[in-house]
Amino acid sequence: MIIVLKPGTDEKTVKEILDHIAECGLKPLHMPGEERVVLGALGDERILGKLHLENHPSVEEVKPVLAPYKMVSREVHPEDSVINLGGVPVGNGFFTVIAGPCAVESYDQMHETGRAVIAAGASALRGGAFKPRTSPYAFQGLGQAGLEILSQVSRELGVPTITEVVEVADIDAVETHSDAFQVGARNMQNFRLLMELGQRRKPVVLKRGMAATVEDLLMAAEYILSQGNKNVILCERGIRTFETSTRNTLDLNAIPFIKQRSHLPILVDPSHGTGLRELVTPMSLAAAAAGADGLLIEVHQNPAEALSDGRQSLYPEQFETLMNSLGPLVSILGRKLNTTAAA
Amino acid sequence: MIIVLKPGTDEKTVKEILDHIAECGLKPLHMPGEERVVLGALGDERILGKLHLENHPSVEEVKPVLAPYKMVSREVHPEDSVINLGGVPVGNGFFTVIAGPCAVESYDQMHETGRAVIAAGASALRGGAFKPRTSPYAFQGLGQAGLEILSQVSRELGVPTITEVVEVADIDAVETHSDAFQVGARNMQNFRLLMELGQRRKPVVLKRGMAATVEDLLMAAEYILSQGNKNVILCERGIRTFETSTRNTLDLNAIPFIKQRSHLPILVDPSHGTGLRELVTPMSLAAAAAGADGLLIEVHQNPAEALSDGRQSLYPEQFETLMNSLGPLVSILGRKLNTTAAA
Amino acid sequence: MIIVLKPGTDEKTVKEILDHIAECGLKPLHMPGEERVVLGALGDERILGKLHLENHPSVEEVKPVLAPYKMVSREVHPEDSVINLGGVPVGNGFFTVIAGPCAVESYDQMHETGRAVIAAGASALRGGAFKPRTSPYAFQGLGQAGLEILSQVSRELGVPTITEVVEVADIDAVETHSDAFQVGARNMQNFRLLMELGQRRKPVVLKRGMAATVEDLLMAAEYILSQGNKNVILCERGIRTFETSTRNTLDLNAIPFIKQRSHLPILVDPSHGTGLRELVTPMSLAAAAAGADGLLIEVHQNPAEALSDGRQSLYPEQFETLMNSLGPLVSILGRKLNTTAAA
Amino acid sequence: MIIVLKPGTDEKTVKEILDHIAECGLKPLHMPGEERVVLGALGDERILGKLHLENHPSVEEVKPVLAPYKMVSREVHPEDSVINLGGVPVGNGFFTVIAGPCAVESYDQMHETGRAVIAAGASALRGGAFKPRTSPYAFQGLGQAGLEILSQVSRELGVPTITEVVEVADIDAVETHSDAFQVGARNMQNFRLLMELGQRRKPVVLKRGMAATVEDLLMAAEYILSQGNKNVILCERGIRTFETSTRNTLDLNAIPFIKQRSHLPILVDPSHGTGLRELVTPMSLAAAAAGADGLLIEVHQNPAEALSDGRQSLYPEQFETLMNSLGPLVSILGRKLNTTAAA
Repeated sequence: MIIVLKPGTDEKTVKEILDHIAECGLKPLHMPGEERVVLGALGDERILGKLHLENHPSVEEVKPVLAPYKMVSREVHPEDSVINLGGVPVGNGFFTVIAGPCAVESYDQMHETGRAVIAAGASALRGGAFKPRTSPYAFQGLGQAGLEILSQVSRELGVPTITEVVEVADIDAVETHSDAFQVGARNMQNFRLLMELGQRRKPVVLKRGMAATVEDLLMAAEYILSQGNKNVILCERGIRTFETSTRNTLDLNAIPFIKQRSHLPILVDPSHGTGLRELVTPMSLAAAAAGADGLLIEVHQNPAEALSDGRQSLYPEQFETLMNSLGPLVSILGRKLNTTAAA
Repeated sequence: MIIVLKPGTDEKTVKEILDHIAECGLKPLHMPGEERVVLGALGDERILGKLHLENHPSVEEVKPVLAPYKMVSREVHPEDSVINLGGVPVGNGFFTVIAGPCAVESYDQMHETGRAVIAAGASALRGGAFKPRTSPYAFQGLGQAGLEILSQVSRELGVPTITEVVEVADIDAVETHSDAFQVGARNMQNFRLLMELGQRRKPVVLKRGMAATVEDLLMAAEYILSQGNKNVILCERGIRTFETSTRNTLDLNAIPFIKQRSHLPILVDPSHGTGLRELVTPMSLAAAAAGADGLLIEVHQNPAEALSDGRQSLYPEQFETLMNSLGPLVSILGRKLNTTAAA
Repeated sequence: MIIVLKPGTDEKTVKEILDHIAECGLKPLHMPGEERVVLGALGDERILGKLHLENHPSVEEVKPVLAPYKMVSREVHPEDSVINLGGVPVGNGFFTVIAGPCAVESYDQMHETGRAVIAAGASALRGGAFKPRTSPYAFQGLGQAGLEILSQVSRELGVPTITEVVEVADIDAVETHSDAFQVGARNMQNFRLLMELGQRRKPVVLKRGMAATVEDLLMAAEYILSQGNKNVILCERGIRTFETSTRNTLDLNAIPFIKQRSHLPILVDPSHGTGLRELVTPMSLAAAAAGADGLLIEVHQNPAEALSDGRQSLYPEQFETLMNSLGPLVSILGRKLNTTAAA
Repeated sequence: MIIVLKPGTDEKTVKEILDHIAECGLKPLHMPGEERVVLGALGDERILGKLHLENHPSVEEVKPVLAPYKMVSREVHPEDSVINLGGVPVGNGFFTVIAGPCAVESYDQMHETGRAVIAAGASALRGGAFKPRTSPYAFQGLGQAGLEILSQVSRELGVPTITEVVEVADIDAVETHSDAFQVGARNMQNFRLLMELGQRRKPVVLKRGMAATVEDLLMAAEYILSQGNKNVILCERGIRTFETSTRNTLDLNAIPFIKQRSHLPILVDPSHGTGLRELVTPMSLAAAAAGADGLLIEVHQNPAEALSDGRQSLYPEQFETLMNSLGPLVSILGRKLNTTAAA
């Protein structure tokens, strides 16, 4: 950690801070420059967090040298992690497509859409039972009944499912009925939810928040791993920027950036990342080419009637066309497209 | 609601959509232009949400005419609301300063800081017991013990308090020990929390999320009001932008903009809005001049030792100086600075 | 165009505005709703710009129905444009890679890098003679001497070149020495420069500004086309967002979005779009998969010694590896990788 | 400057970089930590820019200790600068209001608006002759004729004027007819324009770009000062963020932040900063309270007929009311409101 002092800081204060650093078991360094005095602290600087040197009135700026995350970092765990999603391997060369409707609306809708996406090559199902919606007047999901439909369809089709959990009190129900917990963008920093999911063992698909930096996302994953659950799958789904022609700005830069720093697999959700059905196919291909480990895609039998996010849902035929393009692309990129045991 | 159709949409589809609109009890309008066919739907267009016209493959764009919020709107409730915060009136000409440490660290710290800020003119106390922190390795708050300290200090000093609630399961405890619920920026769209707080009657101080538009903030407030709790106080605390010299970008434009559209009072938090102690005083004055109904300010007896957010906490002497400047300013702006019953 | 009036607007004002619309030769429409009066104007609404209805004190909001651009739009020109870049076709199925150093530093550097990138499969050269730099103390380019080096190397290697023009007074010199004008992100809204380039016939590679929406970019292109120069090639190079781990956020969503609305070809610059050498290769592949018509890539013989942007420049060997991956990818995407006449 | 090396960097490379630093006349420092080797360079690190250490393949990150600007910095020039704007002092306790229409449309319009704003207390006039407009089909200003009108009205009313310059070729004409050069947001990084203005002596009002950080703005000012023109007045006019309810997000945090780091005066433009007439008055007061040295405000005799930006222009009566509120506010803030010699 590098500590830049304000101009005019006196010797006594400098010594005080250096002593503080030494007391923490780190090696203090004194670098008196012409315009600024700079101090250093060598060692595991995360310990220094406790010193709160940034609060000190003589400190102009604190510049960490190391990333604030540990367990999610490739330095601690150099090989790619492979997460077992109800029998489907995610990460390390496997490319996984998870598809289904934004929200579970009925058994028929879920079963029909599920059958179509699995037939087209998806290896897991998605479908929301608890829907966080911006308006209190919008459809909020079927809740428990939705979970049960999802679980039944999953068994009938022989594929794993993921579904969103929005609240600590729902964790048990979601764990019973789903093969993975999805944490939505709005809950990425719901730390109580993350800590509780850290106590479980089913995989957590953690979506990046709309205002979250890559570092924030990795720190949110660190919450889960630090509690004991190592089965975390990251998901890029677009960030909020000034551009309004698309619902979000899909930040594909984050894919190769995270791949270099973390061993966790990362999916891309081009449905939320664009908000426009017409953009989902090209951005799915782009995500694969950028190095993503898979996709999370919204498909609906009849988007015009969808109770939520119909504007960004693919028709089953469009999804089939996408899967047909994806196969050869993933293959020349040197990865393996997962298919269901059934297929 | 205005519905722009894609070029080349056929007559049959146009008729279908117009019929849908009429079935909802709204008046349909047909406006065939040279380059686009435009449809209209007159009436309470919020009903139209159920039609999901934006999902229709022939619809290019849907442009709402009315704001999506109702109960928080000035059109429904033209006069300013005044919220009773444990005896202190907030809104409609009263200017309220709520101050205290970011986190409750100990009885001594809370009592000492509390006494200082009340002496300087604050009319309510703040202090966090449950702290959402970006890093799992950072101080997470004292929890239940923190609530009890806050409540004890509140009684001893004879002033109301507010504290953050981060989880549905904690609502009862916070309700018992505090005069208001604070919903932090990261939970502004934790809709389950909002709906549950809508069932209570103590005021909710709702902070704007880092990526939330003004409309998102008003919709989040609508969640609470729609459940029955009309005691909502908004709070602007900065949004995330590309500017990194300050922790957030304090969006004071939002103050007069919201004042025109909503009857709810709105506070400003210049501590989080800047992240820098040196900027808190000028931005507090600016917030008052922009029309805010009060301030939420972090003060710590010894910021250099604060367990969280010390970099943005005022020293008690700085807070006193701020209050001395604020008095005459609020007065020439035609508003009344609240003082404690005690003072 | 849809005009939403403020609540309480009187009949007389409504009639006045409707008359204004009719006087412009458009068909006025009156839609009195329950909460708002809405007016419409059917016809070429761009004429309405002259009415400035948004300024009217009784107007709450003006919602255009049509895009503000015309000549760049696919509605006016449905087929993809192909731009002739010094003999190399850009757009409509051709995939073009333009590579070279950020700045021309010397004949040797330019010739050596040029030879390497052409050998690896680039079909045109880039190299800056006039460098806009954030700091007045940084290297500003070789100017006229740089143009001459670029032109000589271009002739020797038998490939076309592009180079940046930053000022109206330099247009003639750049036109003499280069096969295309590059307009940098900082000049995307330098309208005088755009209008003057609209008088010329050599192609203009127009880079998106850091704060420019897709619509702003298309309007900037419209400036050039409206003056008579139809040879415009767009370029996505990243926008400024809150994410700081990369230099910019490369907005690949913009590629398929623009492809649907405009006939102009669009390149991607992954060097500026990421700012990090390690991300250039995966994001180049992603750009191709998203539908881009080509790439603009910085390559330097010795990035460690580059006078500008070395951190994002590829080594020649890395560029060669990229080109080897790009070939088969572009091919399965159904496009044709341009190669030099020489190769 | 602090240089963090990548893990596994060998001794030889470390020595090489340390030698480079020493060759530049700076003191090299070696700090071998457990997880990273960190190097330091003490002295005027701006010299180090020439080393381009960030390009080195073994360098993970370069962290500057000093700000990249010098001449605009308060460290070099501790007292507030006062700029002479055609006889009106700007900065150091003087509060200056510059008002007028967005664009000069005719002699009558300019004279009438000018008389009104001067009568209300403005001390200088604004009015654009060259208008950068997003659409090529919008009004582009009267050009030379506009300059002459502005200059004539200025003489008749006995007050100074400022007007925008968009192109090097226009500098002479603007210098002849105006008391100051205004550089618009879109030209803040038109470095050729900045360098040429650095050769002149009339003041430059430099507006912050929509995507410019505070540091970018100060670096743009450094361009002008480094060429010899010390008469620079900064201007905050809003940045582009995800918030769309206002045209821009006025970043008032920038005012006290810049005041601490730079001696240059800074104005606020609440007209562009909000885009909404109704917000101009509260945000003008907020700007004064935040510490701005003055305001740049759009006023039009008849905003409904304005050829540009009418939506954000005040009516003369609104401007008068604003000036009446501003006087006492500026006074209790301890500053002095400039008035014209005439008044």
